[in-house]
Amino acid sequence: MKRIERPVRFEEVDAAGLLFFPIFAAYAHEAMAALFDGLPGGYPAMILERRIGLPAVAMTSSFRSPLRFGDVAIIETTVTRLGNRSCELSYEFLRKADGASCASMTHTVVTTDLTEVKSCPMPADVRREIERHLVAASE
Amino acid sequence: MKRIERPVRFEEVDAAGLLFFPIFAAYAHEAMAALFDGLPGGYPAMILERRIGLPAVAMTSSFRSPLRFGDVAIIETTVTRLGNRSCELSYEFLRKADGASCASMTHTVVTTDLTEVKSCPMPADVRREIERHLVAASE
Amino acid sequence: MKRIERPVRFEEVDAAGLLFFPIFAAYAHEAMAALFDGLPGGYPAMILERRIGLPAVAMTSSFRSPLRFGDVAIIETTVTRLGNRSCELSYEFLRKADGASCASMTHTVVTTDLTEVKSCPMPADVRREIERHLVAASE
Amino acid sequence: MKRIERPVRFEEVDAAGLLFFPIFAAYAHEAMAALFDGLPGGYPAMILERRIGLPAVAMTSSFRSPLRFGDVAIIETTVTRLGNRSCELSYEFLRKADGASCASMTHTVVTTDLTEVKSCPMPADVRREIERHLVAASE
Repeated sequence: MKRIERPVRFEEVDAAGLLFFPIFAAYAHEAMAALFDGLPGGYPAMILERRIGLPAVAMTSSFRSPLRFGDVAIIETTVTRLGNRSCELSYEFLRKADGASCASMTHTVVTTDLTEVKSCPMPADVRREIERHLVAASE
Repeated sequence: MKRIERPVRFEEVDAAGLLFFPIFAAYAHEAMAALFDGLPGGYPAMILERRIGLPAVAMTSSFRSPLRFGDVAIIETTVTRLGNRSCELSYEFLRKADGASCASMTHTVVTTDLTEVKSCPMPADVRREIERHLVAASE
Repeated sequence: MKRIERPVRFEEVDAAGLLFFPIFAAYAHEAMAALFDGLPGGYPAMILERRIGLPAVAMTSSFRSPLRFGDVAIIETTVTRLGNRSCELSYEFLRKADGASCASMTHTVVTTDLTEVKSCPMPADVRREIERHLVAASE
Repeated sequence: MKRIERPVRFEEVDAAGLLFFPIFAAYAHEAMAALFDGLPGGYPAMILERRIGLPAVAMTSSFRSPLRFGDVAIIETTVTRLGNRSCELSYEFLRKADGASCASMTHTVVTTDLTEVKSCPMPADVRREIERHLVAASE
Protein backbone atom coordinates (compact mmCIF):
# COMPACT_ATOMS: atom_id res chain seq x y z
CA MET A 1 0.00 0.00 0.00
CA LYS A 2 1.25 3.44 -0.96
CA ARG A 3 -0.06 6.43 0.91
CA ILE A 4 0.03 10.04 -0.28
CA GLU A 5 -1.41 13.25 1.14
CA ARG A 6 -3.04 15.83 -1.08
CA PRO A 7 -4.39 19.18 0.16
CA VAL A 8 -7.53 20.36 -1.63
CA ARG A 9 -6.65 23.50 -3.54
CA PHE A 10 -8.60 26.77 -3.59
CA GLU A 11 -9.69 26.32 -7.19
CA GLU A 12 -10.64 22.64 -6.97
CA VAL A 13 -14.01 23.19 -5.33
CA ASP A 14 -17.18 23.79 -7.32
CA ALA A 15 -20.05 26.23 -6.98
CA ALA A 16 -21.52 24.04 -4.24
CA GLY A 17 -18.30 24.55 -2.24
CA LEU A 18 -17.27 20.88 -2.45
CA LEU A 19 -14.33 19.23 -4.19
CA PHE A 20 -15.60 18.81 -7.76
CA PHE A 21 -16.17 15.05 -7.98
CA PRO A 22 -14.15 14.43 -11.20
CA ILE A 23 -11.11 15.74 -9.34
CA PHE A 24 -11.16 12.65 -7.12
CA ALA A 25 -10.09 10.80 -10.28
CA ALA A 26 -7.31 13.33 -10.86
CA TYR A 27 -6.10 12.70 -7.31
CA ALA A 28 -6.25 8.95 -8.03
CA HIS A 29 -4.08 9.58 -11.07
CA GLU A 30 -1.56 11.45 -8.91
CA ALA A 31 -1.57 8.53 -6.48
CA MET A 32 -0.88 6.13 -9.37
CA ALA A 33 1.94 8.33 -10.68
CA ALA A 34 3.53 8.26 -7.21
CA LEU A 35 3.90 4.47 -7.49
CA PHE A 36 6.71 5.12 -9.98
CA ASP A 37 8.67 7.65 -7.94
CA GLY A 38 11.39 5.02 -7.54
CA LEU A 39 12.08 4.72 -11.28
CA PRO A 40 14.66 7.09 -12.83
CA GLY A 41 12.74 10.23 -13.82
CA GLY A 42 9.57 8.77 -12.30
CA TYR A 43 6.24 8.79 -14.11
CA PRO A 44 7.17 11.83 -16.28
CA ALA A 45 10.10 9.93 -17.85
CA MET A 46 7.82 6.93 -18.53
CA ILE A 47 5.40 9.18 -20.40
CA LEU A 48 7.74 11.59 -22.14
CA GLU A 49 10.94 9.60 -22.74
CA ARG A 50 9.83 5.99 -22.95
CA ARG A 51 6.39 6.96 -24.32
CA ILE A 52 4.71 4.37 -22.11
CA GLY A 53 1.42 5.34 -20.56
CA LEU A 54 -1.26 3.76 -18.42
CA PRO A 55 -4.56 5.05 -19.79
CA ALA A 56 -7.73 4.10 -17.95
CA VAL A 57 -10.05 1.58 -19.53
CA ALA A 58 -12.44 1.43 -16.60
CA MET A 59 -13.11 3.19 -13.33
CA THR A 60 -15.67 2.71 -10.60
CA SER A 61 -16.18 5.28 -7.86
CA SER A 62 -18.27 5.57 -4.77
CA PHE A 63 -18.48 8.84 -2.89
CA ARG A 64 -19.49 8.94 0.76
CA SER A 65 -18.41 12.23 2.23
CA PRO A 66 -17.30 15.46 0.57
CA LEU A 67 -13.94 17.18 0.74
CA ARG A 68 -13.63 20.95 0.95
CA PHE A 69 -10.93 23.59 0.56
CA GLY A 70 -8.68 23.32 3.60
CA ASP A 71 -9.11 19.55 3.85
CA VAL A 72 -6.19 17.25 3.21
CA ALA A 73 -7.03 13.98 1.44
CA ILE A 74 -5.10 10.85 2.33
CA ILE A 75 -5.06 8.47 -0.61
CA GLU A 76 -4.13 4.83 -0.05
CA THR A 77 -3.36 2.86 -3.19
CA THR A 78 -3.22 -0.89 -3.60
CA VAL A 79 -3.01 -3.10 -6.65
CA THR A 80 -5.95 -5.50 -6.71
CA ARG A 81 -5.30 -7.29 -10.00
CA LEU A 82 -2.15 -7.63 -12.08
CA GLY A 83 -2.26 -9.05 -15.61
CA ASN A 84 0.27 -9.08 -18.42
CA ARG A 85 -0.64 -5.71 -19.86
CA SER A 86 -3.24 -4.37 -17.48
CA CYS A 87 -3.81 -3.99 -13.78
CA GLU A 88 -6.46 -2.77 -11.39
CA LEU A 89 -5.59 -0.16 -8.81
CA SER A 90 -7.81 0.52 -5.81
CA TYR A 91 -7.86 3.78 -3.89
CA GLU A 92 -9.26 4.73 -0.51
CA PHE A 93 -9.75 8.44 0.15
CA LEU A 94 -9.70 9.58 3.78
CA ARG A 95 -10.11 13.04 5.23
CA LYS A 96 -6.95 13.66 7.24
CA ALA A 97 -8.54 15.77 9.99
CA ASP A 98 -10.99 13.14 11.20
CA GLY A 99 -10.11 9.98 9.27
CA ALA A 100 -13.53 9.91 7.60
CA SER A 101 -13.79 7.62 4.61
CA CYS A 102 -14.70 9.93 1.72
CA ALA A 103 -14.50 7.80 -1.40
CA SER A 104 -13.32 4.51 -2.89
CA MET A 105 -12.26 3.91 -6.46
CA THR A 106 -11.04 1.12 -8.69
CA HIS A 107 -9.06 2.00 -11.79
CA THR A 108 -8.15 -0.43 -14.55
CA VAL A 109 -5.28 0.70 -16.72
CA VAL A 110 -3.60 -0.84 -19.75
CA THR A 111 0.08 -0.44 -20.56
CA THR A 112 0.12 1.56 -23.77
CA ASP A 113 2.70 2.56 -26.33
CA LEU A 114 1.82 6.24 -26.62
CA THR A 115 3.46 6.60 -30.03
CA GLU A 116 1.27 3.90 -31.57
CA VAL A 117 -1.57 4.36 -29.04
CA LYS A 118 -1.71 0.56 -28.76
CA SER A 119 -1.45 -1.73 -25.77
CA CYS A 120 1.98 -3.22 -25.13
CA PRO A 121 3.58 -5.58 -22.61
CA MET A 122 4.29 -4.04 -19.23
CA PRO A 123 8.04 -3.35 -18.93
CA ALA A 124 9.72 -5.34 -16.15
CA ASP A 125 10.68 -2.31 -14.05
CA VAL A 126 7.17 -0.84 -14.27
CA ARG A 127 5.76 -4.21 -13.26
CA ARG A 128 8.10 -4.43 -10.30
CA GLU A 129 6.90 -1.10 -8.91
CA ILE A 130 3.27 -2.13 -9.32
CA GLU A 131 3.85 -5.55 -7.78
CA ARG A 132 5.09 -4.01 -4.53
CA HIS A 133 1.55 -2.89 -3.79
CA LEU A 134 -0.27 -6.03 -4.92
CA VAL A 135 -2.65 -7.34 -2.29
CA ALA A 136 -4.01 -10.88 -2.20
CA ALA A 137 -7.42 -11.22 -3.83
CA SER A 138 -8.96 -12.23 -0.53
CA GLU A 139 -8.08 -8.96 1.16
CA MET B 1 -32.42 11.20 -24.52
CA LYS B 2 -30.67 14.55 -24.40
CA ARG B 3 -27.76 15.15 -26.72
CA ILE B 4 -25.11 17.84 -26.31
CA GLU B 5 -21.92 18.60 -28.21
CA ARG B 6 -18.73 19.57 -26.44
CA PRO B 7 -15.48 20.50 -28.21
CA VAL B 8 -12.33 19.36 -26.42
CA ARG B 9 -10.48 22.46 -25.31
CA PHE B 10 -6.76 23.20 -25.73
CA GLU B 11 -6.03 22.85 -22.02
CA GLU B 12 -8.08 19.70 -21.40
CA VAL B 13 -5.53 17.29 -22.82
CA ASP B 14 -2.76 15.78 -20.72
CA ALA B 15 0.94 15.23 -21.29
CA ALA B 16 0.07 12.15 -23.38
CA GLY B 17 -1.92 14.41 -25.72
CA LEU B 18 -5.27 12.80 -24.85
CA LEU B 19 -8.31 14.23 -23.09
CA PHE B 20 -7.42 13.77 -19.40
CA PHE B 21 -9.75 10.94 -18.36
CA PRO B 22 -11.28 12.65 -15.27
CA ILE B 23 -12.57 15.35 -17.63
CA PHE B 24 -14.99 12.82 -19.16
CA ALA B 25 -16.78 13.04 -15.80
CA ALA B 26 -16.77 16.85 -16.00
CA TYR B 27 -18.37 16.58 -19.45
CA ALA B 28 -20.93 14.16 -17.96
CA HIS B 29 -21.67 16.78 -15.32
CA GLU B 30 -22.23 19.39 -18.04
CA ALA B 31 -24.57 16.97 -19.81
CA MET B 32 -26.51 16.50 -16.56
CA ALA B 33 -26.72 20.26 -16.00
CA ALA B 34 -28.16 20.65 -19.51
CA LEU B 35 -31.15 18.51 -18.49
CA PHE B 36 -32.34 21.49 -16.45
CA ASP B 37 -32.03 24.15 -19.14
CA GLY B 38 -35.83 24.33 -19.24
CA LEU B 39 -36.16 25.41 -15.60
CA PRO B 40 -36.05 29.15 -14.80
CA GLY B 41 -32.39 30.01 -14.30
CA GLY B 42 -31.45 26.44 -15.20
CA TYR B 43 -29.00 24.41 -13.14
CA PRO B 44 -27.22 27.51 -11.73
CA ALA B 45 -30.45 28.72 -10.08
CA MET B 46 -31.02 25.24 -8.59
CA ILE B 47 -27.56 25.35 -7.02
CA LEU B 48 -27.24 28.99 -6.01
CA GLU B 49 -30.80 30.13 -5.31
CA ARG B 50 -32.66 27.00 -4.27
CA ARG B 51 -29.52 25.41 -2.83
CA ILE B 52 -30.45 22.03 -4.30
CA GLY B 53 -27.64 19.96 -5.71
CA LEU B 54 -27.16 16.54 -7.23
CA PRO B 55 -23.85 15.26 -5.86
CA ALA B 56 -22.55 11.96 -7.18
CA VAL B 57 -22.67 8.95 -4.90
CA ALA B 58 -21.42 6.51 -7.52
CA MET B 59 -19.97 6.50 -10.99
CA THR B 60 -18.82 3.75 -13.33
CA SER B 61 -16.86 4.51 -16.47
CA SER B 62 -15.50 2.52 -19.36
CA PHE B 63 -13.15 4.13 -21.83
CA ARG B 64 -12.71 2.70 -25.33
CA SER B 65 -11.21 5.35 -27.54
CA PRO B 66 -9.45 8.61 -26.68
CA LEU B 67 -10.51 12.14 -27.51
CA ARG B 68 -8.00 14.79 -28.51
CA PHE B 69 -7.86 18.56 -28.92
CA GLY B 70 -9.88 19.38 -32.02
CA ASP B 71 -12.36 16.56 -31.45
CA VAL B 72 -15.95 17.31 -30.62
CA ALA B 73 -17.61 14.93 -28.15
CA ILE B 74 -21.27 14.10 -28.55
CA ILE B 75 -22.76 13.17 -25.19
CA GLU B 76 -26.09 11.35 -25.09
CA THR B 77 -27.77 11.29 -21.70
CA THR B 78 -30.56 9.01 -20.55
CA VAL B 79 -32.02 8.35 -17.12
CA THR B 80 -31.77 4.65 -16.33
CA ARG B 81 -33.23 4.64 -12.82
CA LEU B 82 -35.42 7.12 -10.99
CA GLY B 83 -36.06 6.84 -7.26
CA ASN B 84 -37.54 9.23 -4.72
CA ARG B 85 -34.34 11.06 -3.93
CA SER B 86 -31.83 9.58 -6.31
CA CYS B 87 -31.50 8.65 -9.93
CA GLU B 88 -29.01 7.04 -12.28
CA LEU B 89 -27.93 8.85 -15.41
CA SER B 90 -26.20 7.05 -18.26
CA TYR B 91 -23.96 8.75 -20.79
CA GLU B 92 -22.63 7.65 -24.15
CA PHE B 93 -19.66 9.58 -25.51
CA LEU B 94 -19.19 9.61 -29.30
CA ARG B 95 -16.52 11.28 -31.38
CA LYS B 96 -18.41 13.57 -33.75
CA ALA B 97 -16.04 13.26 -36.71
CA ASP B 98 -16.41 9.49 -37.14
CA GLY B 99 -19.13 8.46 -34.69
CA ALA B 100 -16.69 6.28 -32.74
CA SER B 101 -17.92 5.21 -29.32
CA CYS B 102 -15.35 6.65 -26.91
CA ALA B 103 -16.75 6.04 -23.43
CA SER B 104 -19.81 5.06 -21.41
CA MET B 105 -20.64 6.18 -17.90
CA THR B 106 -23.30 5.70 -15.27
CA HIS B 107 -23.74 8.35 -12.62
CA THR B 108 -25.87 7.99 -9.51
CA VAL B 109 -26.81 11.26 -7.89
CA VAL B 110 -28.79 12.11 -4.78
CA THR B 111 -30.93 15.21 -4.41
CA THR B 112 -29.21 17.20 -1.69
CA ASP B 113 -30.01 20.25 0.37
CA LEU B 114 -26.70 22.08 -0.04
CA THR B 115 -27.22 24.22 3.08
CA GLU B 116 -27.57 21.16 5.33
CA VAL B 117 -25.54 18.87 3.03
CA LYS B 118 -28.25 16.22 3.54
CA SER B 119 -30.37 14.31 1.07
CA CYS B 120 -33.86 15.70 0.44
CA PRO B 121 -36.88 14.80 -1.68
CA MET B 122 -36.54 15.63 -5.36
CA PRO B 123 -38.61 18.75 -6.12
CA ALA B 124 -41.46 18.11 -8.58
CA ASP B 125 -40.09 20.35 -11.34
CA VAL B 126 -36.62 18.82 -11.10
CA ARG B 127 -38.20 15.36 -11.25
CA ARG B 128 -40.23 16.30 -14.33
CA GLU B 129 -37.11 17.33 -16.24
CA ILE B 130 -35.36 14.10 -15.30
CA GLU B 131 -38.39 11.96 -16.16
CA ARG B 132 -38.39 13.19 -19.76
CA HIS B 133 -35.23 11.21 -20.37
CA LEU B 134 -36.17 8.06 -18.46
CA VAL B 135 -35.74 4.93 -20.54
CA ALA B 136 -37.39 1.61 -19.76
CA ALA B 137 -35.12 -0.76 -17.90
CA SER B 138 -35.18 -3.21 -20.79
CA GLU B 139 -33.67 -0.71 -23.22
CA MET C 1 -13.85 43.17 -33.04
CA LYS C 2 -14.80 39.57 -32.39
CA ARG C 3 -17.33 38.83 -29.68
CA ILE C 4 -17.87 35.50 -27.97
CA GLU C 5 -20.06 34.43 -25.07
CA ARG C 6 -18.81 32.06 -22.41
CA PRO C 7 -20.93 30.77 -19.53
CA VAL C 8 -19.03 30.32 -16.27
CA ARG C 9 -18.98 26.62 -15.49
CA PHE C 10 -19.80 24.97 -12.15
CA GLU C 11 -16.20 23.95 -11.51
CA GLU C 12 -14.55 27.23 -12.55
CA VAL C 13 -15.30 29.08 -9.32
CA ASP C 14 -12.97 28.99 -6.35
CA ALA C 15 -13.54 28.55 -2.62
CA ALA C 16 -14.56 32.22 -2.42
CA GLY C 17 -17.37 31.48 -4.89
CA LEU C 18 -15.89 33.66 -7.64
CA LEU C 19 -14.50 32.75 -11.05
CA PHE C 20 -10.90 31.82 -10.24
CA PHE C 21 -8.95 34.75 -11.65
CA PRO C 22 -6.45 32.74 -13.76
CA ILE C 23 -9.45 31.39 -15.70
CA PHE C 24 -10.02 34.85 -17.17
CA ALA C 25 -6.81 34.19 -19.09
CA ALA C 26 -8.16 30.80 -20.22
CA TYR C 27 -11.27 32.56 -21.50
CA ALA C 28 -9.02 35.06 -23.29
CA HIS C 29 -7.25 32.13 -24.91
CA GLU C 30 -10.59 30.74 -26.09
CA ALA C 31 -11.45 34.16 -27.51
CA MET C 32 -8.11 34.20 -29.38
CA ALA C 33 -8.71 30.69 -30.72
CA ALA C 34 -12.10 31.81 -32.05
CA LEU C 35 -10.33 34.34 -34.30
CA PHE C 36 -9.23 31.39 -36.44
CA ASP C 37 -12.60 29.69 -36.81
CA GLY C 38 -12.58 30.69 -40.48
CA LEU C 39 -9.41 28.73 -41.31
CA PRO C 40 -9.80 25.08 -42.36
CA GLY C 41 -9.74 23.05 -39.15
CA GLY C 42 -9.57 26.26 -37.12
CA TYR C 43 -7.11 26.75 -34.28
CA PRO C 44 -6.79 22.98 -33.57
CA ALA C 45 -5.43 22.36 -37.10
CA MET C 46 -2.94 25.24 -36.67
CA ILE C 47 -1.63 23.64 -33.48
CA LEU C 48 -1.79 19.95 -34.32
CA GLU C 49 -1.30 19.77 -38.09
CA ARG C 50 0.71 22.84 -38.97
CA ARG C 51 2.41 22.90 -35.56
CA ILE C 52 2.09 26.67 -35.37
CA GLY C 53 1.23 28.14 -32.01
CA LEU C 54 0.79 31.55 -30.45
CA PRO C 55 2.32 31.30 -26.98
CA ALA C 56 2.01 34.31 -24.68
CA VAL C 57 5.08 36.38 -24.00
CA ALA C 58 3.27 39.00 -21.95
CA MET C 59 -0.11 39.62 -20.41
CA THR C 60 -1.57 42.47 -18.39
CA SER C 61 -4.88 42.15 -16.59
CA SER C 62 -7.09 44.40 -14.56
CA PHE C 63 -10.04 42.99 -12.69
CA ARG C 64 -12.96 45.19 -11.68
CA SER C 65 -15.93 43.01 -10.93
CA PRO C 66 -16.17 39.27 -10.28
CA LEU C 67 -17.98 36.63 -12.31
CA ARG C 68 -19.86 33.78 -10.66
CA PHE C 69 -21.39 30.46 -11.64
CA GLY C 70 -24.50 31.23 -13.67
CA ASP C 71 -22.98 34.36 -15.21
CA VAL C 72 -22.24 34.52 -18.89
CA ALA C 73 -19.11 36.43 -19.88
CA ILE C 74 -19.07 38.40 -23.09
CA ILE C 75 -15.53 38.68 -24.39
CA GLU C 76 -14.71 41.28 -27.03
CA THR C 77 -11.38 40.83 -28.77
CA THR C 78 -9.46 43.37 -30.79
CA VAL C 79 -5.93 43.41 -32.17
CA THR C 80 -4.08 46.42 -30.85
CA ARG C 81 -0.66 45.81 -32.41
CA LEU C 82 0.45 43.69 -35.33
CA GLY C 83 4.10 43.02 -36.03
CA ASN C 84 5.88 40.52 -38.27
CA ARG C 85 5.92 37.67 -35.81
CA SER C 86 3.99 38.97 -32.85
CA CYS C 87 0.80 40.80 -32.08
CA GLU C 88 -1.06 42.22 -29.12
CA LEU C 89 -4.64 41.21 -28.50
CA SER C 90 -6.91 43.18 -26.17
CA TYR C 91 -9.93 41.73 -24.43
CA GLU C 92 -12.86 43.33 -22.66
CA PHE C 93 -14.89 41.10 -20.35
CA LEU C 94 -18.52 42.07 -19.75
CA ARG C 95 -21.13 40.38 -17.59
CA LYS C 96 -23.99 39.59 -19.96
CA ALA C 97 -26.83 40.05 -17.48
CA ASP C 98 -26.07 43.69 -16.67
CA GLY C 99 -23.31 44.72 -19.07
CA ALA C 100 -20.91 45.37 -16.17
CA SER C 101 -17.27 45.69 -17.19
CA CYS C 102 -15.53 42.90 -15.30
CA ALA C 103 -11.97 42.82 -16.63
CA SER C 104 -9.61 44.01 -19.34
CA MET C 105 -6.56 42.20 -20.62
CA THR C 106 -3.79 42.63 -23.13
CA HIS C 107 -2.05 39.57 -24.47
CA THR C 108 1.14 39.60 -26.55
CA VAL C 109 1.73 36.43 -28.50
CA VAL C 110 4.54 35.32 -30.79
CA THR C 111 4.06 33.04 -33.78
CA THR C 112 5.96 29.91 -32.87
CA ASP C 113 7.05 26.76 -34.65
CA LEU C 114 5.96 24.24 -32.01
CA THR C 115 8.29 21.53 -33.30
CA GLU C 116 11.37 23.73 -32.83
CA VAL C 117 9.78 25.88 -30.09
CA LYS C 118 11.19 28.92 -31.89
CA SER C 119 9.51 32.03 -33.22
CA CYS C 120 8.67 32.01 -36.93
CA PRO C 121 7.07 34.36 -39.45
CA MET C 122 3.30 34.61 -39.21
CA PRO C 123 1.73 32.64 -42.09
CA ALA C 124 -0.29 34.81 -44.49
CA ASP C 125 -3.64 33.20 -43.73
CA VAL C 126 -3.12 33.49 -39.95
CA ARG C 127 -2.16 37.14 -40.42
CA ARG C 128 -5.25 37.80 -42.50
CA GLU C 129 -7.56 36.52 -39.75
CA ILE C 130 -5.76 38.64 -37.15
CA GLU C 131 -5.80 41.73 -39.35
CA ARG C 132 -9.60 41.71 -39.58
CA HIS C 133 -9.73 42.75 -35.94
CA LEU C 134 -6.92 45.30 -35.97
CA VAL C 135 -7.97 48.64 -34.52
CA ALA C 136 -6.18 51.92 -35.12
CA ALA C 137 -3.73 52.83 -32.37
CA SER C 138 -5.75 55.90 -31.51
CA GLU C 139 -8.84 53.90 -30.62
CA MET D 1 11.40 36.24 0.03
CA LYS D 2 9.38 33.04 0.23
CA ARG D 3 10.32 30.15 -2.01
CA ILE D 4 8.10 27.22 -2.94
CA GLU D 5 8.54 24.33 -5.35
CA ARG D 6 5.73 23.12 -7.55
CA PRO D 7 5.98 20.14 -9.91
CA VAL D 8 4.06 20.55 -13.17
CA ARG D 9 1.28 18.01 -13.18
CA PHE D 10 0.33 15.64 -16.01
CA GLU D 11 -2.92 17.46 -16.75
CA GLU D 12 -1.56 21.01 -16.56
CA VAL D 13 -0.01 21.02 -20.01
CA ASP D 14 -1.94 22.03 -23.11
CA ALA D 15 -2.22 20.57 -26.59
CA ALA D 16 1.13 22.19 -27.47
CA GLY D 17 2.73 20.17 -24.64
CA LEU D 18 3.58 23.24 -22.56
CA LEU D 19 2.28 24.36 -19.17
CA PHE D 20 -0.93 26.20 -20.09
CA PHE D 21 0.01 29.84 -19.49
CA PRO D 22 -2.96 30.76 -17.24
CA ILE D 23 -1.74 28.12 -14.82
CA PHE D 24 1.31 30.26 -14.05
CA ALA D 25 -1.19 32.56 -12.32
CA ALA D 26 -2.64 29.60 -10.40
CA TYR D 27 0.90 28.77 -9.24
CA ALA D 28 1.33 32.41 -8.22
CA HIS D 29 -1.86 32.11 -6.20
CA GLU D 30 -0.47 29.01 -4.46
CA ALA D 31 2.72 30.93 -3.70
CA MET D 32 0.66 33.76 -2.20
CA ALA D 33 -1.37 31.32 -0.10
CA ALA D 34 1.87 29.86 1.25
CA LEU D 35 2.73 33.27 2.77
CA PHE D 36 0.03 32.58 5.36
CA ASP D 37 1.13 29.09 6.38
CA GLY D 38 2.17 30.53 9.74
CA LEU D 39 -1.33 31.71 10.67
CA PRO D 40 -3.64 29.27 12.49
CA GLY D 41 -5.44 27.30 9.77
CA GLY D 42 -3.42 29.12 7.12
CA TYR D 43 -4.99 30.63 4.03
CA PRO D 44 -8.01 28.26 4.10
CA ALA D 45 -9.08 29.57 7.54
CA MET D 46 -8.70 33.18 6.30
CA ILE D 47 -11.05 32.43 3.40
CA LEU D 48 -13.55 30.08 5.00
CA GLU D 49 -13.67 31.10 8.67
CA ARG D 50 -12.72 34.76 8.70
CA ARG D 51 -14.15 35.31 5.20
CA ILE D 52 -11.19 37.50 4.27
CA GLY D 53 -9.87 37.13 0.77
CA LEU D 54 -7.23 38.72 -1.42
CA PRO D 55 -8.77 38.96 -4.88
CA ALA D 56 -6.58 40.22 -7.71
CA VAL D 57 -7.22 43.66 -9.08
CA ALA D 58 -4.27 43.63 -11.46
CA MET D 59 -1.66 41.27 -12.78
CA THR D 60 1.21 41.64 -15.21
CA SER D 61 3.06 38.64 -16.59
CA SER D 62 6.02 38.10 -18.83
CA PHE D 63 6.82 34.63 -20.09
CA ARG D 64 10.32 33.74 -21.26
CA SER D 65 10.68 30.01 -21.28
CA PRO D 66 8.07 27.24 -21.12
CA LEU D 67 7.58 24.63 -18.43
CA ARG D 68 6.62 21.06 -19.28
CA PHE D 69 5.34 17.97 -17.49
CA GLY D 70 8.20 16.66 -15.41
CA ASP D 71 9.59 20.10 -14.69
CA VAL D 72 9.55 21.51 -11.20
CA ALA D 73 8.88 25.24 -10.92
CA ILE D 74 10.59 27.24 -8.19
CA ILE D 75 8.50 30.27 -7.30
CA GLU D 76 10.08 33.11 -5.36
CA THR D 77 7.64 35.59 -3.86
CA THR D 78 8.38 39.07 -2.59
CA VAL D 79 6.13 41.95 -1.59
CA THR D 80 6.94 45.00 -3.67
CA ARG D 81 4.31 47.41 -2.34
CA LEU D 82 2.28 47.42 0.84
CA GLY D 83 -0.64 49.79 1.35
CA ASN D 84 -3.45 49.91 3.88
CA ARG D 85 -5.78 47.56 2.07
CA SER D 86 -3.79 46.41 -0.91
CA CYS D 87 -0.36 45.12 -1.74
CA GLU D 88 1.67 44.08 -4.75
CA LEU D 89 3.31 40.68 -4.82
CA SER D 90 6.07 39.84 -7.29
CA TYR D 91 6.91 36.33 -8.41
CA GLU D 92 9.91 34.87 -10.20
CA PHE D 93 9.45 31.46 -11.80
CA LEU D 94 12.56 29.34 -12.27
CA ARG D 95 12.91 25.89 -13.78
CA LYS D 96 14.50 23.78 -11.05
CA ALA D 97 16.54 21.51 -13.32
CA ASP D 98 18.62 24.28 -14.93
CA GLY D 99 17.70 27.45 -13.05
CA ALA D 100 16.26 29.03 -16.21
CA SER D 101 14.12 32.08 -15.62
CA CYS D 102 10.72 31.13 -17.04
CA ALA D 103 8.38 33.94 -16.06
CA SER D 104 7.88 37.01 -13.88
CA MET D 105 4.62 38.30 -12.52
CA THR D 106 3.28 41.12 -10.41
CA HIS D 107 -0.01 40.66 -8.63
CA THR D 108 -1.96 43.42 -6.91
CA VAL D 109 -4.50 42.19 -4.41
CA VAL D 110 -7.01 43.99 -2.20
CA THR D 111 -8.07 42.77 1.22
CA THR D 112 -11.72 41.92 0.81
CA ASP D 113 -14.59 41.01 3.09
CA LEU D 114 -15.92 38.02 1.16
CA THR D 115 -19.36 38.22 2.76
CA GLU D 116 -19.90 41.79 1.57
CA VAL D 117 -17.51 41.46 -1.40
CA LYS D 118 -16.09 44.86 -0.40
CA SER D 119 -12.56 45.96 0.40
CA CYS D 120 -11.67 46.11 4.08
CA PRO D 121 -8.62 46.99 6.21
CA MET D 122 -5.89 44.37 6.25
CA PRO D 123 -6.01 42.54 9.60
CA ALA D 124 -2.84 42.99 11.67
CA ASP D 125 -1.79 39.34 11.56
CA VAL D 126 -2.27 39.12 7.80
CA ARG D 127 -0.24 42.31 7.41
CA ARG D 128 2.55 40.92 9.56
CA GLU D 129 2.91 37.84 7.36
CA ILE D 130 3.01 39.98 4.23
CA GLU D 131 5.47 42.45 5.74
CA ARG D 132 8.05 39.71 6.30
CA HIS D 133 8.58 39.54 2.56
CA LEU D 134 8.54 43.27 1.82
CA VAL D 135 11.53 44.38 -0.19
CA ALA D 136 12.74 47.96 -0.42
CA ALA D 137 11.46 49.79 -3.47
CA SER D 138 15.00 50.16 -4.78
CA GLU D 139 15.58 46.42 -4.97
